[in-house]
Amino acid sequence: MSAVVVEKPALREGAFGNAQALSCRECGHQVELGPHYACPECFGPLEIAYEFGTVTREQIEAGPRNIWRYKALLPVPDDIESSPNTEPGFTRLLKADNLAAELGITNLWVKDDSTNPTNSFKDRVVACALSAARELGAKVFACPSTGNLANAVAAAGARAGIKTVVFIPSNLEQPKQVNSAVFTESLVAVNGNYDDVNKLASEIAGEEEGWAFVNVNVRPFYAEGSKTLGYEIAEQLGWRLPDQIVIPVASGSQLTKVHKAFQELIKLGLVEDKPYKVFGAQAEGCSPVSVAYKAGVDAIRPVKPDTIAKSLAIGNPADGIYVLDICKQTGGAVEDVTDDEIRAGIVQLARTEGIFTETAGGTTVAVLKKLVETGQLDPTLETVAINTGHGLKTLDAVSGSVGPAATIDPTYAAFAATGLA
Amino acid sequence: MSAVVVEKPALREGAFGNAQALSCRECGHQVELGPHYACPECFGPLEIAYEFGTVTREQIEAGPRNIWRYKALLPVPDDIESSPNTEPGFTRLLKADNLAAELGITNLWVKDDSTNPTNSFKDRVVACALSAARELGAKVFACPSTGNLANAVAAAGARAGIKTVVFIPSNLEQPKQVNSAVFTESLVAVNGNYDDVNKLASEIAGEEEGWAFVNVNVRPFYAEGSKTLGYEIAEQLGWRLPDQIVIPVASGSQLTKVHKAFQELIKLGLVEDKPYKVFGAQAEGCSPVSVAYKAGVDAIRPVKPDTIAKSLAIGNPADGIYVLDICKQTGGAVEDVTDDEIRAGIVQLARTEGIFTETAGGTTVAVLKKLVETGQLDPTLETVAINTGHGLKTLDAVSGSVGPAATIDPTYAAFAATGLA
Repeated sequence: MSAVVVEKPALREGAFGNAQALSCRECGHQVELGPHYACPECFGPLEIAYEFGTVTREQIEAGPRNIWRYKALLPVPDDIESSPNTEPGFTRLLKADNLAAELGITNLWVKDDSTNPTNSFKDRVVACALSAARELGAKVFACPSTGNLANAVAAAGARAGIKTVVFIPSNLEQPKQVNSAVFTESLVAVNGNYDDVNKLASEIAGEEEGWAFVNVNVRPFYAEGSKTLGYEIAEQLGWRLPDQIVIPVASGSQLTKVHKAFQELIKLGLVEDKPYKVFGAQAEGCSPVSVAYKAGVDAIRPVKPDTIAKSLAIGNPADGIYVLDICKQTGGAVEDVTDDEIRAGIVQLARTEGIFTETAGGTTVAVLKKLVETGQLDPTLETVAINTGHGLKTLDAVSGSVGPAATIDPTYAAFAATGLA
Repeated sequence: MSAVVVEKPALREGAFGNAQALSCRECGHQVELGPHYACPECFGPLEIAYEFGTVTREQIEAGPRNIWRYKALLPVPDDIESSPNTEPGFTRLLKADNLAAELGITNLWVKDDSTNPTNSFKDRVVACALSAARELGAKVFACPSTGNLANAVAAAGARAGIKTVVFIPSNLEQPKQVNSAVFTESLVAVNGNYDDVNKLASEIAGEEEGWAFVNVNVRPFYAEGSKTLGYEIAEQLGWRLPDQIVIPVASGSQLTKVHKAFQELIKLGLVEDKPYKVFGAQAEGCSPVSVAYKAGVDAIRPVKPDTIAKSLAIGNPADGIYVLDICKQTGGAVEDVTDDEIRAGIVQLARTEGIFTETAGGTTVAVLKKLVETGQLDPTLETVAINTGHGLKTLDAVSGSVGPAATIDPTYAAFAATGLA
């Protein structure tokens, strides 16, 4: 299953903090912590099981201003801050009164992950994967990716001084290639689409010794990084859960992990136990979870993506069924929007709150709008929307729809004639 | 001088916090706080004079995780956090051991302002200008700019709900136009170069009532925002000044304000009084201050810029003589590097620390390298280098020099043949 070979005796004490085992989400079977991602019994997804002990608000608040303030809740060692990493997280939670007014919501916040080190939430998950790779003795830190993940892996690997190899489709736009190539001399362009790149990555993970593919063989560790979004939102609200939260859905991992984070905070007594509704946001051109939700079925039918929201374009989302389950169980919903609505969402967030989001964030804003209009989201309750990445990475999405209001000669008379004064 | 007309009685109590007056840097003449930027006696630059009273570390540490934790040291009201703003600052101070090792330095830090809301240090200064504009009753928030400043003004204005008008040269690259146009419907493209745009802005500032041009008539307030870089560095080092600091020089304002910040911290007893050396970094293609430093003269001879470091391309830097003075007085220096060295600096910082900087940051890294090689900077002393902005904004600078190591078919055999395994 994986060739990151470190015998257990080689693992140092506390390599994974309070994590105790890998536990199958489907059958509950437990395996030892290591580079495994599928249950040997039922092939279900493995996730991290912990014994947290006591964790206090004071302990967290005394920590660094990045995700490591939550290290006791992550599969990382207690000395994680001392290992070079990009120090992601603790991004802005902005009160979004202007957007709220336009949408008819009373109390709205935007959690802005576009200000992370490589400008997306991927820095969080990659930082956790990097820790696992280091503790497991990996020699190479790698991923298949079309964008945000490639940036995050290449940057984190550079800073950690570990060799990175990043695989991308060869037809990827040049700016996106540069944004990874600047960090690594081992960017590999693959003739094929993302599925081909992904398949090649799995093959290499099986053949090569000591390779940690962040989203393949160390995925259970990687995925835990998304929990920090949930922790931060609660802490930044003053150790309180919101009533409603809207989260974009690609593989669905982020949504399930934010829910997991909220549940952990409740169990640890760090926030009051209260109901909250989780909403999933998809693009119409890749909406397998939304389609299943609306049809009232439990199974996700894979689709071939066709949307400008490339970072959400996963046609067969691994955690789709868990997203369905969480959204239904909490009283939320899953909704989707068109590419035009996504473009409008990007501009609306920029014009109201000064945040330039990528297409995934445009999807979230547009879905939020649609949820209010269709009465699925209660506009009187406190709501948080997550912005997962930066608009500079998906400039093409809006470059046709925004631009100068006027082009003038450099004279006051020419300016006065524009009517902009 | 300015048409932001608010009679003094209309200013609310405490509108500018501990700021007491505008004081001429040249002759010391004081004028009332308002939209003024040049001394009525001698035309010298005006800057903010304060009476701080007592400011403690505890007071600052209890503040928000953005520049407003230093509000007692800025010309802003005590309730500044409650007015919508982009909440910039408190960016990463990263220990840069990999870069240090390559450069032969023992103890190096990078202050990374590329993770600010619109990805440059300009968010700091614009936030202070926005506060002044609001308190002065301005109706329009404006600037002439070719890049970072335009982004910051358009975003901050959108979030504050104040009308923004941003002036750019009409031949500006489309991505840079989009990165401002997404925030404002009043982007004005001007047929001409930056000097033409700037001249037009001054003309409009004189003609129109209630316009706050951030870098023209509210410049003294605006410039104070750069002090927060100095405060943060000291606080993040554990309330301690570094021995050496390297700062890029465009107008020179940032360098003088970081020095001012260090001096204020010493006077307030917030850090120990100790010597520190300040170094200025310029691009050879626009190096009027470096040329004067090397020639040992006090006067700056203006130049016509010709460099890829566009955000440093100010041929007649307003604060150049103060930069010279500070660098000489503290035992530092001013140095410049070629465009090729700048490109190499960008890649070196990315590959060693996972930070993708713009050309200004590449300049700083390259100058740091040159200062060590020429013996001007002591490699055994603690050193901080400032990264002012994000590489995504100046992609062209490196797009020709980095890229995939290999392009392969999607098979393991093809990968194995690359030698990257």
